[in-house]
Amino acid sequence: MQNMKNSKVAGETLLSMPWENRPAGCKDVIWRYSANPIIPRNLLPTSNSIFNSAIVPFKEGYAGVFRCDDTNRRMRLHVGFSDDAIHWNIQEQPLTFLCDDEEIGTWVYGYDPRVCFIEDRYYVTWCNGYHGPTIGVAYTYDFINFYQLENAFIPFNRNGVLFPRKINGRFAMLSRPSDNGHTPFGDIFYSESPDMEFWGHHRHVMSPASFEESAWQCIKIGAGPVPIETSEGWLLIYHGVLASCNGFVYSFGSALLDLNQPWKVKYRSGPYLLSPQKDYECMGDVPNVCFPCAALHDSASERIAIYYGCADTVTGLAFGYIPEIIEFTKRTSII
Amino acid sequence: MQNMKNSKVAGETLLSMPWENRPAGCKDVIWRYSANPIIPRNLLPTSNSIFNSAIVPFKEGYAGVFRCDDTNRRMRLHVGFSDDAIHWNIQEQPLTFLCDDEEIGTWVYGYDPRVCFIEDRYYVTWCNGYHGPTIGVAYTYDFINFYQLENAFIPFNRNGVLFPRKINGRFAMLSRPSDNGHTPFGDIFYSESPDMEFWGHHRHVMSPASFEESAWQCIKIGAGPVPIETSEGWLLIYHGVLASCNGFVYSFGSALLDLNQPWKVKYRSGPYLLSPQKDYECMGDVPNVCFPCAALHDSASERIAIYYGCADTVTGLAFGYIPEIIEFTKRTSII
Amino acid sequence: MQNMKNSKVAGETLLSMPWENRPAGCKDVIWRYSANPIIPRNLLPTSNSIFNSAIVPFKEGYAGVFRCDDTNRRMRLHVGFSDDAIHWNIQEQPLTFLCDDEEIGTWVYGYDPRVCFIEDRYYVTWCNGYHGPTIGVAYTYDFINFYQLENAFIPFNRNGVLFPRKINGRFAMLSRPSDNGHTPFGDIFYSESPDMEFWGHHRHVMSPASFEESAWQCIKIGAGPVPIETSEGWLLIYHGVLASCNGFVYSFGSALLDLNQPWKVKYRSGPYLLSPQKDYECMGDVPNVCFPCAALHDSASERIAIYYGCADTVTGLAFGYIPEIIEFTKRTSII
Amino acid sequence: MQNMKNSKVAGETLLSMPWENRPAGCKDVIWRYSANPIIPRNLLPTSNSIFNSAIVPFKEGYAGVFRCDDTNRRMRLHVGFSDDAIHWNIQEQPLTFLCDDEEIGTWVYGYDPRVCFIEDRYYVTWCNGYHGPTIGVAYTYDFINFYQLENAFIPFNRNGVLFPRKINGRFAMLSRPSDNGHTPFGDIFYSESPDMEFWGHHRHVMSPASFEESAWQCIKIGAGPVPIETSEGWLLIYHGVLASCNGFVYSFGSALLDLNQPWKVKYRSGPYLLSPQKDYECMGDVPNVCFPCAALHDSASERIAIYYGCADTVTGLAFGYIPEIIEFTKRTSII
Amino acid sequence: MQNMKNSKVAGETLLSMPWENRPAGCKDVIWRYSANPIIPRNLLPTSNSIFNSAIVPFKEGYAGVFRCDDTNRRMRLHVGFSDDAIHWNIQEQPLTFLCDDEEIGTWVYGYDPRVCFIEDRYYVTWCNGYHGPTIGVAYTYDFINFYQLENAFIPFNRNGVLFPRKINGRFAMLSRPSDNGHTPFGDIFYSESPDMEFWGHHRHVMSPASFEESAWQCIKIGAGPVPIETSEGWLLIYHGVLASCNGFVYSFGSALLDLNQPWKVKYRSGPYLLSPQKDYECMGDVPNVCFPCAALHDSASERIAIYYGCADTVTGLAFGYIPEIIEFTKRTSII
Amino acid sequence: MQNMKNSKVAGETLLSMPWENRPAGCKDVIWRYSANPIIPRNLLPTSNSIFNSAIVPFKEGYAGVFRCDDTNRRMRLHVGFSDDAIHWNIQEQPLTFLCDDEEIGTWVYGYDPRVCFIEDRYYVTWCNGYHGPTIGVAYTYDFINFYQLENAFIPFNRNGVLFPRKINGRFAMLSRPSDNGHTPFGDIFYSESPDMEFWGHHRHVMSPASFEESAWQCIKIGAGPVPIETSEGWLLIYHGVLASCNGFVYSFGSALLDLNQPWKVKYRSGPYLLSPQKDYECMGDVPNVCFPCAALHDSASERIAIYYGCADTVTGLAFGYIPEIIEFTKRTSII
Repeated sequence: MQNMKNSKVAGETLLSMPWENRPAGCKDVIWRYSANPIIPRNLLPTSNSIFNSAIVPFKEGYAGVFRCDDTNRRMRLHVGFSDDAIHWNIQEQPLTFLCDDEEIGTWVYGYDPRVCFIEDRYYVTWCNGYHGPTIGVAYTYDFINFYQLENAFIPFNRNGVLFPRKINGRFAMLSRPSDNGHTPFGDIFYSESPDMEFWGHHRHVMSPASFEESAWQCIKIGAGPVPIETSEGWLLIYHGVLASCNGFVYSFGSALLDLNQPWKVKYRSGPYLLSPQKDYECMGDVPNVCFPCAALHDSASERIAIYYGCADTVTGLAFGYIPEIIEFTKRTSII
Repeated sequence: MQNMKNSKVAGETLLSMPWENRPAGCKDVIWRYSANPIIPRNLLPTSNSIFNSAIVPFKEGYAGVFRCDDTNRRMRLHVGFSDDAIHWNIQEQPLTFLCDDEEIGTWVYGYDPRVCFIEDRYYVTWCNGYHGPTIGVAYTYDFINFYQLENAFIPFNRNGVLFPRKINGRFAMLSRPSDNGHTPFGDIFYSESPDMEFWGHHRHVMSPASFEESAWQCIKIGAGPVPIETSEGWLLIYHGVLASCNGFVYSFGSALLDLNQPWKVKYRSGPYLLSPQKDYECMGDVPNVCFPCAALHDSASERIAIYYGCADTVTGLAFGYIPEIIEFTKRTSII
Repeated sequence: MQNMKNSKVAGETLLSMPWENRPAGCKDVIWRYSANPIIPRNLLPTSNSIFNSAIVPFKEGYAGVFRCDDTNRRMRLHVGFSDDAIHWNIQEQPLTFLCDDEEIGTWVYGYDPRVCFIEDRYYVTWCNGYHGPTIGVAYTYDFINFYQLENAFIPFNRNGVLFPRKINGRFAMLSRPSDNGHTPFGDIFYSESPDMEFWGHHRHVMSPASFEESAWQCIKIGAGPVPIETSEGWLLIYHGVLASCNGFVYSFGSALLDLNQPWKVKYRSGPYLLSPQKDYECMGDVPNVCFPCAALHDSASERIAIYYGCADTVTGLAFGYIPEIIEFTKRTSII
Repeated sequence: MQNMKNSKVAGETLLSMPWENRPAGCKDVIWRYSANPIIPRNLLPTSNSIFNSAIVPFKEGYAGVFRCDDTNRRMRLHVGFSDDAIHWNIQEQPLTFLCDDEEIGTWVYGYDPRVCFIEDRYYVTWCNGYHGPTIGVAYTYDFINFYQLENAFIPFNRNGVLFPRKINGRFAMLSRPSDNGHTPFGDIFYSESPDMEFWGHHRHVMSPASFEESAWQCIKIGAGPVPIETSEGWLLIYHGVLASCNGFVYSFGSALLDLNQPWKVKYRSGPYLLSPQKDYECMGDVPNVCFPCAALHDSASERIAIYYGCADTVTGLAFGYIPEIIEFTKRTSII
Repeated sequence: MQNMKNSKVAGETLLSMPWENRPAGCKDVIWRYSANPIIPRNLLPTSNSIFNSAIVPFKEGYAGVFRCDDTNRRMRLHVGFSDDAIHWNIQEQPLTFLCDDEEIGTWVYGYDPRVCFIEDRYYVTWCNGYHGPTIGVAYTYDFINFYQLENAFIPFNRNGVLFPRKINGRFAMLSRPSDNGHTPFGDIFYSESPDMEFWGHHRHVMSPASFEESAWQCIKIGAGPVPIETSEGWLLIYHGVLASCNGFVYSFGSALLDLNQPWKVKYRSGPYLLSPQKDYECMGDVPNVCFPCAALHDSASERIAIYYGCADTVTGLAFGYIPEIIEFTKRTSII
Repeated sequence: MQNMKNSKVAGETLLSMPWENRPAGCKDVIWRYSANPIIPRNLLPTSNSIFNSAIVPFKEGYAGVFRCDDTNRRMRLHVGFSDDAIHWNIQEQPLTFLCDDEEIGTWVYGYDPRVCFIEDRYYVTWCNGYHGPTIGVAYTYDFINFYQLENAFIPFNRNGVLFPRKINGRFAMLSRPSDNGHTPFGDIFYSESPDMEFWGHHRHVMSPASFEESAWQCIKIGAGPVPIETSEGWLLIYHGVLASCNGFVYSFGSALLDLNQPWKVKYRSGPYLLSPQKDYECMGDVPNVCFPCAALHDSASERIAIYYGCADTVTGLAFGYIPEIIEFTKRTSII
């Protein structure tokens, strides 16, 4: 089915990326890895949970920045490496950032990282505690030294996700303005920066859908992995939230953004791609959460592997074909 | 034990209804079907969940109206048929209502249907979106063409359940006035109509119980299946809600209403008949929900089969003997 | 200015109605009576406040049903009479209703009455306590004996206002579905009844306006006096509510409804006609409330006198010309 | 590892207490009993759940006071006996208290008991319904007759836990002032009494930790089992609560209180000892709850067995060595 | 009218107390002083407001403890003296308490004091900040040195009011358990102490009234001045609160408590005695508040002068005859 | 008293600014203009209220940008001119901004403007509706043409106030991150921009004070007029909010910020300078609001005139001497 090509996908070939074929009889656009979860909650001696993490190809293998809450339930970032992007060696010591300015560099808390390679280095963005949650920014060349820059925005903000190349000559980021609590609302915005220090040109991208049209994304939404450039536009995997009488449910779907004006949404999936249905997604520290933060893809085969946090406790993996996701997004679009 | 007869049950014999004997050692009044859930969440290609549904005997077999939320998480009604009332063939296309008046007939959303045969036809009532939730009404002769009537009430209302015959010469309905959110309160009321178009003669039936007396039903209550006429009064299976620090818990119990003045409650069970305890009731889109919407019974054997939604995700089945339920209701009554 | 006639107003001539000319320099469509408030809070020995009341022409003079909260702060209805519709003689004993059915006739509380003459009698509708607020209905020929009918709706409802003649051969009523608290939402609906007992044919009339377009009516709205028939449609004076950080603010504006299908709004004023600005409107038991419940008009001069509750404490009076109000409604319409 | 002794533990030897060695490869300070839960929810014919219960050595075996919610979901206390402290014989009839003063002795509800032996008798403290939750107090010599005393405090209070001997010549109790709902806050206080009737000398002990430092205990905390006297101070096992977007999560940790001034906290664990991770802790009437109410220990081997409620549904058991817990508390202390 | 004597009032004669006859035409049981407010908000150079204060006869004149919020809006207590109990000389320096125990004596905040003479000294009780509001206790002989005792209760509590003599051989206090915010509930309780240090024997006195019966006191209630002993029981002036959509309204009424068992309410007024109606009661830092904290009475003339805070900003005075208040309480009683 | 000079004030001489001497006997640092309010609510034919407005010296007189809510209660900005800065001629037509980018330039709503002259032009900042409130930025040379720039931040933000000169070579702004409702929290932040388009270098300035230390500013705070440069630092007049049980109370105080690192607060007044006490501040659309948005000062006499919104309804004026305000800020500082 993956030959339905009407799209071209940017990026390098990545033959070594994880893969498992669609199970027999399965008609879903996205399917789970049969060995999920790939990272158990207590992989580290003091980890309470490992989830909502970001990984990228690095050298011959893979590197990542992981959200590891410790048994104090403090939110910490850790660096990890892997040969196959499935079995991870995560460092026991939390990641520390180098920063000249103590005001910015003082650690309060950090969570839900994303990692994005642009031009010559890897940028990390995460939800950074600075008098409330905002978007922290840092870069590394080697996953050893991380240089922390200014926070991108004034609080309160979460889910800051960079684009993998400059747009209109500037760095570009998606983010989700928030409040300082569990935030019962949230739209995705787009911002630009000439220098990764000053940000402006803020554009509204999309709001939650109406309850009547697409309820899984009717309370708030937020960007997931780094967008993937295709001939059909930027492919964005994003999470959406529904509020039941028993709390929030996090699912994820897909959208296509204009290549040059990414704040213009061309298509946006009405159905979710994946919602919490498995035990490890429905049971844990926060039940009913599927939260994607990273993806690998191979431009040749157009395969994608999506990494997502499960129940705020463990990390799962799901597979699909980019052309099929694009076709699904366009066919079911609510725009 | 089912010979403890001091009640007569109205209705036809229904030899073909589903049945499974009480498990050895079980002393519960109601017991679950061992093959629960009978309908998986993804029976349809685009269904996220199938639950809170209504079924009735129809011709040689059974027909039903099912709540099938799709993967947009939109709430839709679908028609289904079955030979044994356990294995269901549900149509992929949502049910559409015929209606002369566009103002009423325009579909917004619909959920939690009940089906009731009165005189010559099957009436469907459901929670219908019309500037907020209210009680939609329609009828069908054949489960092919459904004719939509006026909504019974102004919003906000849910859980509209018809009686299976006229009372005092008029159609009669139970319902639960609500608000437009997750409604942290709710009493059952009784209303009459000469013509299924205009409703009045509203009477209060019952309130939530006190926390000290029967906590499972202390926040709100709502009618479940169509009431069953017995010599002891109308047997009403109804759900009740408890608010824990982690959300609502839906259980169900039973009451006996006066035959001629059904707003007068004669007995009402202090204990629940069934509460969420199995995995498929405790885990799903809304954990800890058992929500009955339909029942089959055989007047000869006085057996009853109760259909209930599980965790707002799948559909379950439970069995019992009507005389035992009546005896339980009277013995444990909190009135 | 009142000669700008392009409308005809139904109803009798009423030369004796209260009147005061528009003050010099005033350009407002509606202006306050210079001797406001006309009824002090302690007119009765045990009244805490007298407001949100309804008056009509009666015999040679006027009669009314008044909301008089006593010093227990219980909400009670009282009958009153007046020669000039300004100075009122209100009976010390609360109004009692005659009712055959104790279930309905038992007094719990009643407030915010409206009075409407239809065909041969005066109907009173009010917010009636019956397991929550709903619309009570009664009639009288003489303001001595009041015969209570069934409540029009299941709870929760407020602001039930009858039309002064049958429409489409049926009685017609506006109302505002609510919850059982201070209700932070509320739309106006239209319903019909063949017999003042059973109600149906519920139609949505209008919602609060958007905050951006007309903020004084952005939280909830409700019908005020009995609508006035004009050649331009039913003239409806209605209240709207804004939520500031310090509570609700009640103002009022105007709308024109289709004569035959009154659920269709032809025009609706963007600006308010009157908002709380005077001491007696801004200070009292509930600050910042102007709440109209009745109006007198003279079809010859097309003058109108609007009675409105002030700060839930006293009763005020305001004047205007119906053609000017119609012109204002059309000119500023947000539809 | 249990030989790391730098502490002496008060109390008698208790060779018969339940025990299971630390599983191979486990590095946790506390480990679960492999046969958890030890008490199923429906051990009694009418029990909905059995949890948050208190047990003590008694004669040759063990006795306990159990929280058994019935299928009305009423909270009741029951007496039980056991030979091995694992298999329990719980009486079907609820415990009744003897009390001269009807005002105090009238049963409303009772839950979350603790039992403490002081000098010559067993004291029971529990959350007692008296115009809101407060701390009920009773004593027994034989677990047959229970003599109820005055409530220790005015409402609202929960989690009253006695010290096992007088301090400064007075009885001493920890408690947690609350409100009358699900209480989103809560500190532990210390109080003294000369006579178990009048209480005073109230001292603040500890507040929730900051979200940044120890999030599992950042909303509210409450004492668990009776404190254990050691050379390092009173060892207190206490629960803490985190508020996720999907509700409260109850974990437990440890603290060391000054022997003579127990309101002075010497050490307090940053990490939890145990958090909800097993199915029977994550799924049930209130998901994600581990709530300790009792412990047995043997002063010779310094072993401890902690009894804790699981998901407000069943009862679990966990094991550890007191010196290791002390060392953990000191090493990870956030004070 | 004050000759309707069927009651005897305890206490000394107090010829010098403030007085003003009932205004002509006034039929109210209680009437305001014509020169209200007697204490302006800025009497002190740094006072933002002076209200909710307590005064007593002292030597030849009067002394008092005043709540003076400063322009930081910090709540402070100040001592004042007066010859006529109307014109007050309030000290600029806040009152400081002598206390051996730093834990208790450290000032956080204090407000709403009461002063009560028992046996040989003046006791001050107030809402004292100690990890939340609780009841502070101190005594003085001379209004120069104030000796602070233990707090009477664990937080959260407000409105602690002592009885003017021992009851059943013990000190006795009314109080109102609360939460740590604006507390939307609240009952009055009674407690005893053998020594002013340990408190127990807690008894429920009364709850808010139902909305339907006496709405001004339907949210919460609290004791006002020190109760006055009469042959008809303890006369208690107490405040009650109603919640409008625009906030709380504080009025006050009266009750008669059993002389020997003061937790038994014999009579309780349905109507309020006084509600916010004057500008200085309706406008200020907290609009619509009349909050009594003290009263003077003369046992010979049976006159009473009630001091009450107005709009949390200034202090007012109202007059009445005790026998008339007793008659009113009995006649309108809702018990 | 104004000779207590130990500070020098930047800025030009402004002999024509409004002034009124301190009233006799007044010891306040700031005193109100005796003819307040200076702008009535209905100055324009369609204005509901005129408040929270900004004025500056312009040519021979003064110009301003005014918040004029119309009788739809829509929030609009209007331009006005004055000779004496007291009597204003406000244009009836709302201000319109010129903007090349329709996405930014589309008017939704705008309120609470500030105006700041920097180098060669006047910048206007205001709370601008763009998918929630954020900081709009525009400039004008002539108060005729206004050129709108990019919004400074992503929503949600309010109270954006520019510094009157570049700092560290960049434009500098204070702002207050918010949510999209009535925002019960709020800190002041500092941001820089090289070009008025991109903003970064975000620094935390100050949080609300503790309730115990300075309650009038314990909920949220926000910058008021453009800061004034003095030898003691930037003088900032800012508003603070207290939450009573009847809503928010807005007062204002003062702070001194470091000249080169304005995010460092040197001094901050514990007491307020002005709080709502006059009728026109306590009564209106939002009672109890004093909200400063602009100030004029004369560097020679060191006089200041502060313009502040009153009860969200009218505009008031208050006077003082800058050296006295500085002395007050340092003397009462809570830092």
